[in-house]
Amino acid sequence: MVLSVSFMRRKPVIGVIGGNTQTASSKDIEISEEVGKELIDAGYRIICGGLGGVMESVARGAHSSERYTEGSIIGILPGLSKDDASPFCDIIIVTGMNLARNQIIVASADAIVAIGGGAGTLSEIAYAWQYNKPIYAFQTEGWSGKVAGKTLDFRGRTPIYEVNSPAELIHKLQDQF
Amino acid sequence: MVLSVSFMRRKPVIGVIGGNTQTASSKDIEISEEVGKELIDAGYRIICGGLGGVMESVARGAHSSERYTEGSIIGILPGLSKDDASPFCDIIIVTGMNLARNQIIVASADAIVAIGGGAGTLSEIAYAWQYNKPIYAFQTEGWSGKVAGKTLDFRGRTPIYEVNSPAELIHKLQDQF
Amino acid sequence: MVLSVSFMRRKPVIGVIGGNTQTASSKDIEISEEVGKELIDAGYRIICGGLGGVMESVARGAHSSERYTEGSIIGILPGLSKDDASPFCDIIIVTGMNLARNQIIVASADAIVAIGGGAGTLSEIAYAWQYNKPIYAFQTEGWSGKVAGKTLDFRGRTPIYEVNSPAELIHKLQDQF
Amino acid sequence: MVLSVSFMRRKPVIGVIGGNTQTASSKDIEISEEVGKELIDAGYRIICGGLGGVMESVARGAHSSERYTEGSIIGILPGLSKDDASPFCDIIIVTGMNLARNQIIVASADAIVAIGGGAGTLSEIAYAWQYNKPIYAFQTEGWSGKVAGKTLDFRGRTPIYEVNSPAELIHKLQDQF
Repeated sequence: MVLSVSFMRRKPVIGVIGGNTQTASSKDIEISEEVGKELIDAGYRIICGGLGGVMESVARGAHSSERYTEGSIIGILPGLSKDDASPFCDIIIVTGMNLARNQIIVASADAIVAIGGGAGTLSEIAYAWQYNKPIYAFQTEGWSGKVAGKTLDFRGRTPIYEVNSPAELIHKLQDQF
Repeated sequence: MVLSVSFMRRKPVIGVIGGNTQTASSKDIEISEEVGKELIDAGYRIICGGLGGVMESVARGAHSSERYTEGSIIGILPGLSKDDASPFCDIIIVTGMNLARNQIIVASADAIVAIGGGAGTLSEIAYAWQYNKPIYAFQTEGWSGKVAGKTLDFRGRTPIYEVNSPAELIHKLQDQF
Repeated sequence: MVLSVSFMRRKPVIGVIGGNTQTASSKDIEISEEVGKELIDAGYRIICGGLGGVMESVARGAHSSERYTEGSIIGILPGLSKDDASPFCDIIIVTGMNLARNQIIVASADAIVAIGGGAGTLSEIAYAWQYNKPIYAFQTEGWSGKVAGKTLDFRGRTPIYEVNSPAELIHKLQDQF
Repeated sequence: MVLSVSFMRRKPVIGVIGGNTQTASSKDIEISEEVGKELIDAGYRIICGGLGGVMESVARGAHSSERYTEGSIIGILPGLSKDDASPFCDIIIVTGMNLARNQIIVASADAIVAIGGGAGTLSEIAYAWQYNKPIYAFQTEGWSGKVAGKTLDFRGRTPIYEVNSPAELIHKLQDQF
């Protein structure tokens, strides 16, 4: 039956968050490019904020996967113009809602991966916590390192997973999906 | 260069709006299913509200195109759960913003196609008018028929195009893209 | 008991919508200024879009009521800066969500009054219809005149009330609240 | 001239954020009630999330100020129903945008005061940081205590002020406004 086939086909969507052009370190950029490639290799779709820094490098990495197809990378923009999007995003969603678009990234993802990051990333981690999304945080400088392995408040939910390499991330995601 | 290739590859995104399960007529369903197929045949991507009625039939039609690939159909949901989505949508964006999600459908589309519709469709037509998106309205019962060939206010912009068949729609879209 | 006193004290909130600086006619401006005064005279609070045209004149009119107090006029802004607000708005809500802020005006109002208006007003009327808010539309040029006395779709709800003067509006509102 | 008078009259708006019914400690409740009273005493308006816990106690405290007037307390709700609001909020803004409403609280405030709090409060602190709002964080358990006196990322802006009592808060706010 078509319906069930279609449902079956939907890939899990992984939200990748992290520093923008100003706040991402060169290590963050390196990690996120590899994460992008490995997530697509492993059969996931990626959603991100559609701009520069970690958002751009995860999308660039995705393009280098042999399993990349057009539509593998979704970018959720804060503004009203598609021209703001990183060239590596295939599907551009234009929200016109400024930072409130962070809710849409998180709510649309089946899991969240944080790589470094400043206050923008922190707001997304906090949303993911409240929306009860599994969170995987790289042990790097920035907010992902500060929250890795921790809980954010008294909600009775799974703590934030600490990850130290793209391979470990893929391994831990496979427990979930 | 990778960047320009990627930019070149992005297909125009057509927003298809119209009645939901309660308000879509059987004629609307028939038209929208054919519109879905022909838009994908012609190389476009489709964005819609992700629920039933016209939203579901345009997505179902898209699946019947030989050029359909996973990622051809984006559904922008009002609620917080992916389970609300029509099974024919590939890319599910969860906004949690109720009817404010209508802005996101319109702002993310390069053109809007209206097929029948009640007050929800009307709000999207009104947004598309303000965001200066080309609007193509089918001459059917419901709001698309009422606004076809008209202007909505004194803004100096192209009037709403009237279309009478999916073939005419595709022909007129080709003047734009 | 404090709680019930507080609940009792909340005034009904009337959303006043209509043309902006470009689309409002001089008649719209005149009507809305009187509407602003009479709504405050009658004990209501006003919510509007916080900018120019009808939004500004209804707020200016409110100030001329003897029952005006600071807090009588709420303006819901599309942008991120309070500086965009009409000087006559007391309570400024900054949404940063562009036209999606129209949902907030409508959802926060207990009834909607439309005076003329272009596509922006039309989107608000369409939202008010879906959120089942009582709608009062002045019989003037623009969208309020086109929808006065009508229904927008097949939803089984009260049609849009036609009003021809501020006095008639106040009279009809008193049937509701 | 009316315009300038009106501009002069607008009180600074202080956003008060903190734990909800589940996460607020009894100390948070005590502090926020006193903060509510003292902010109104000092001539400010208060904006909050409109629900329980710190949001409710700051609003309750405001009512106990002699300078309280109807309109002193604005509550920005995540859902679509006014019935969710704390009875102590005068001005109820209904957003229907779930946690994305946190952007509206922060963007509408001239300064933010954090009292304890879990992940919701953390998302608001992170937004306030990005929107460059002055932030005053109580040295209590919860996220306000963790960020007091700190910076959130490399943005070149004023660190988060640490405050230890309502009196110190009022004193520090007076340097700002």
